[in-house]
Amino acid sequence: MKLAELGEFGLIDRIKANVAASPSVLLGIGDDAAALSPTPGQVTLITSDMLLEGVHFDLSFCDPRTLGRKSLSVNLSDVAAMGARPRHFLLGVALPKEIPLEFMDGFMAGMLEQAQRYGATLVGGDTCASKGGLAISVTALGEQRPELVLKRSGAKPGDLICVTGTVGDAAAGLKQLFAGVREGFLVSRQLDPTPRVEAGVALAEAGVVTAMIDVSDGVLQDLGHICEMSGVGARLELARLPLSDAYRAGCGDDLFALALSGGEDYELLFCIPAGKEAEVAALCAKVDLPVSVIGEITAGTGMKLTAPDGSSYTPPRRGFDHFGAD
Amino acid sequence: MKLAELGEFGLIDRIKANVAASPSVLLGIGDDAAALSPTPGQVTLITSDMLLEGVHFDLSFCDPRTLGRKSLSVNLSDVAAMGARPRHFLLGVALPKEIPLEFMDGFMAGMLEQAQRYGATLVGGDTCASKGGLAISVTALGEQRPELVLKRSGAKPGDLICVTGTVGDAAAGLKQLFAGVREGFLVSRQLDPTPRVEAGVALAEAGVVTAMIDVSDGVLQDLGHICEMSGVGARLELARLPLSDAYRAGCGDDLFALALSGGEDYELLFCIPAGKEAEVAALCAKVDLPVSVIGEITAGTGMKLTAPDGSSYTPPRRGFDHFGAD
Repeated sequence: MKLAELGEFGLIDRIKANVAASPSVLLGIGDDAAALSPTPGQVTLITSDMLLEGVHFDLSFCDPRTLGRKSLSVNLSDVAAMGARPRHFLLGVALPKEIPLEFMDGFMAGMLEQAQRYGATLVGGDTCASKGGLAISVTALGEQRPELVLKRSGAKPGDLICVTGTVGDAAAGLKQLFAGVREGFLVSRQLDPTPRVEAGVALAEAGVVTAMIDVSDGVLQDLGHICEMSGVGARLELARLPLSDAYRAGCGDDLFALALSGGEDYELLFCIPAGKEAEVAALCAKVDLPVSVIGEITAGTGMKLTAPDGSSYTPPRRGFDHFGAD
Repeated sequence: MKLAELGEFGLIDRIKANVAASPSVLLGIGDDAAALSPTPGQVTLITSDMLLEGVHFDLSFCDPRTLGRKSLSVNLSDVAAMGARPRHFLLGVALPKEIPLEFMDGFMAGMLEQAQRYGATLVGGDTCASKGGLAISVTALGEQRPELVLKRSGAKPGDLICVTGTVGDAAAGLKQLFAGVREGFLVSRQLDPTPRVEAGVALAEAGVVTAMIDVSDGVLQDLGHICEMSGVGARLELARLPLSDAYRAGCGDDLFALALSGGEDYELLFCIPAGKEAEVAALCAKVDLPVSVIGEITAGTGMKLTAPDGSSYTPPRRGFDHFGAD
């Protein structure tokens, strides 16, 4: 069947049929707006991201199910980076008319399986026709007690800088995709990232984190946001960057370039007071996630990068800017 | 200055500088997610709409400021159709690199002036580059006491069907735009609709409305949604449709076609128990908005349209479907 036969409202009904009810959703898909019941004593965390064909994704690189998962994951990652639990989300999708219905079915199956895994309910959105490529917009909502919300702005000189998992994988995976590789660890890290929801919530509830962000634009750029918002500087020891074996094999000539400036790892980058590293490692171990201390927050501004041989390191580029020249 | 010189984060800072603080916003633009403090005892109404260049708007038809206002208005209209007060919104925007910074400044000025007028605060979103046209995604949030929220599903046989303002103007305005007209009442109704926020809230708080929707897809289609969700039918008397003089002059051969199936009037279409029409007229008069009774909810299903001469009327098309053939 084609989308034109099903129609806009047929498509909405088809999506709605696969969404489970949730006690916090008084009114879900199918009215002018959804009605949500906030949990008393908690604040609402809300974030929104657009994903555009030709900019954020290439349909020849991935199947619809994986794209559906990733479109939600990148938003859940932002909720996790606040230390919040995902609760609800909205999906806006602009579809080229020639896209087969099977594409949309696969996309929704991926998105809804990821939603179920992380406790988020689809409550509304928008479907329309696109005269250009596929455009996706997701708005995700989470909740947390106000005193536990983790901002970018609380880092203090002397804090240790930590990152979960490994970095650079997604950027190395993108390089492989452009070279024609379609599977493997790095490719999967690029196409199907895991939002660190359990770790984000555990870190928030332990009360040990002073500032947190997710690695979407690259370690340097995202650490730069923490530094700017906290009014501090940072010293990074490149020898301590957590790099996967696949990354080491596939990253190219400069071992650190993609790990520092490549985006889309969706790991959590955060700061803790010195002495808390064992507690944090134990916390992350509980959710099966390695964590590494990669440097220290410093007074003043600016970032200092130290290579394994002790020399000063200058990265070839800092991170991704949507309106930049490259 | 060009967008590329300002950069993604420079653009975000530029937007942020024009956003006023609000006590319900614990954390606004500039972190991974915004943190909002829900009003105790109220539910959150949330809605999201995409607007795409070449599908929803044509940049040769309107200035950036007007487009900014409309992009927010269509979302505020959905919040109003629930009987809720707008509170916050997020903006996602994908910008072609060649768009001048002045465009974005004008767009934001329009959006923020509309936001201020209706009490909504910009709290976050996403900016990215587009390789196709301009794409806009707005998510709007409102609040209301749960017992006052107006759904599509409460209409009962015997209820009177009401609509605010006049209908068909926006569709007639679009016809004029395609014919080269760039100003006047009808064009302004298409490019710069007024969300009926005060009327929506007043109707909800009076407790007289059984079902409500905004007219975005056309009277027939939107009334059809109320009928479907309420399990009822409807009888419309075309002689009672509120038509502006400008519409009568510019609508073409069939006086009722665009008034019934043209979308984007963003008027409120709602049902009330018989006998409540004077109360509702008084309520709407307080916010300077005319209201008309245009028909009656019937038992069963199906819609019956009666022409002024008493004959049965069949519309040439029902309303807008994004994936439809035309």
